[in-house]
Amino acid sequence: MNGKLYGIGVGPGDPELLTLKAKRILEQVEVLLVPKSKMEKRSIALEIAKGAVDKDWQQVDLHMPMTADKAELIKSWQQAAKQIANILQEGKDAAFVTLGDPSLYSTFTYVMKHIKALAPEALIEIVPGISSINLMAATYQVPLAESEESVVIIPALKDKESLEQTINQFDNVVLLKAGNQIQKLSDILAELGQEKDFYYASRCGFADSYYTEDITELLDRKLDYLSTIIIKKKK
Amino acid sequence: MNGKLYGIGVGPGDPELLTLKAKRILEQVEVLLVPKSKMEKRSIALEIAKGAVDKDWQQVDLHMPMTADKAELIKSWQQAAKQIANILQEGKDAAFVTLGDPSLYSTFTYVMKHIKALAPEALIEIVPGISSINLMAATYQVPLAESEESVVIIPALKDKESLEQTINQFDNVVLLKAGNQIQKLSDILAELGQEKDFYYASRCGFADSYYTEDITELLDRKLDYLSTIIIKKKK
Repeated sequence: MNGKLYGIGVGPGDPELLTLKAKRILEQVEVLLVPKSKMEKRSIALEIAKGAVDKDWQQVDLHMPMTADKAELIKSWQQAAKQIANILQEGKDAAFVTLGDPSLYSTFTYVMKHIKALAPEALIEIVPGISSINLMAATYQVPLAESEESVVIIPALKDKESLEQTINQFDNVVLLKAGNQIQKLSDILAELGQEKDFYYASRCGFADSYYTEDITELLDRKLDYLSTIIIKKKK
Repeated sequence: MNGKLYGIGVGPGDPELLTLKAKRILEQVEVLLVPKSKMEKRSIALEIAKGAVDKDWQQVDLHMPMTADKAELIKSWQQAAKQIANILQEGKDAAFVTLGDPSLYSTFTYVMKHIKALAPEALIEIVPGISSINLMAATYQVPLAESEESVVIIPALKDKESLEQTINQFDNVVLLKAGNQIQKLSDILAELGQEKDFYYASRCGFADSYYTEDITELLDRKLDYLSTIIIKKKK
């Protein structure tokens, strides 16, 4: 197995937020591995990569369905691992492109586990990327955390009680995929009075991104799945 | 005030982990703002920037003492804000270079607050960078978080009880500046039995970095201030 697999974080949307290393590796590899929730859909990670690197890769789409069915998910990861192992076997280097950072909520880590099980000798390198969370903080010009503060990242809203407890416990709370639970959060923040600052972004990093610090703007609206909220203790 | 201020995350150490945008802006600006804990010391952020961009900037060192004295800190931030405002006033663009990401535990956010107070009209842009936390996860090839998991980042170990509670509460815990509290952590992990995976890195991103997954290697050793620990629920 002579090929090498790279897990490449292409960052949150702007091709300029790729790292120099990600760009160099994308220029070097022969094969581009493109995860797709539906095979006919365009891939955002691919578009970002193409925005930074002009190359005619051998493109291999990997089917990564968005489903809660664990058996179906495992089957898709195993299938992708087999496809990738075959490419490495041919001596080709391949880059798996993933939005944001491969270590934060990326499908790459699942596929990698299955490759390691299938081909323990496979050469793998992960290149970190800018996460949309860091871009959101940079855009609002508010720190995610400073000094002795902690920060917690929660990928889905829990029940109201545990969410309220977390918001009370931490100076900085980042909520991902929070679009459909704004009312619950609004109630919690109202109970806490003026103690917290609220920052919302949907599709952070993309051309159609939307930002607001006013939670009332968001009530009774259908919000994008890719919604992120930062809640900070007021200073 | 015609100059623009950039807060640039230069990433965790490898100049190749700068973003394309950070590189472009560093090539464009006239002035490089370099925070220094001691004025005679070399700056790691500056060395990273120089590793990626070959330019003869007008370099302005900013004194950012490492002290717990709040009054002294505020004075240094105000002083830096004044220096920067003067540069912007001259119509020069300036880049403040900071290790990792400007939104995570960076002095840039403090200085920025004072600039905004001093010169509300100042143009400011933050360019996010790769944090050493993301690089550490990439190096170990373990996710910081996946699926519905939360992750909490704690910059300094609290008392043993609250630390134990946090480790119990979260699937993924990142401890920063944890070098001098390994014994306490070892006790907690021993009490928890085989439930947790442990990853340690000191000076992650630098040539003299050190990694181990064996906490007993660390006991009774003097550990670097820049020590990071990831504790994950075993799967």
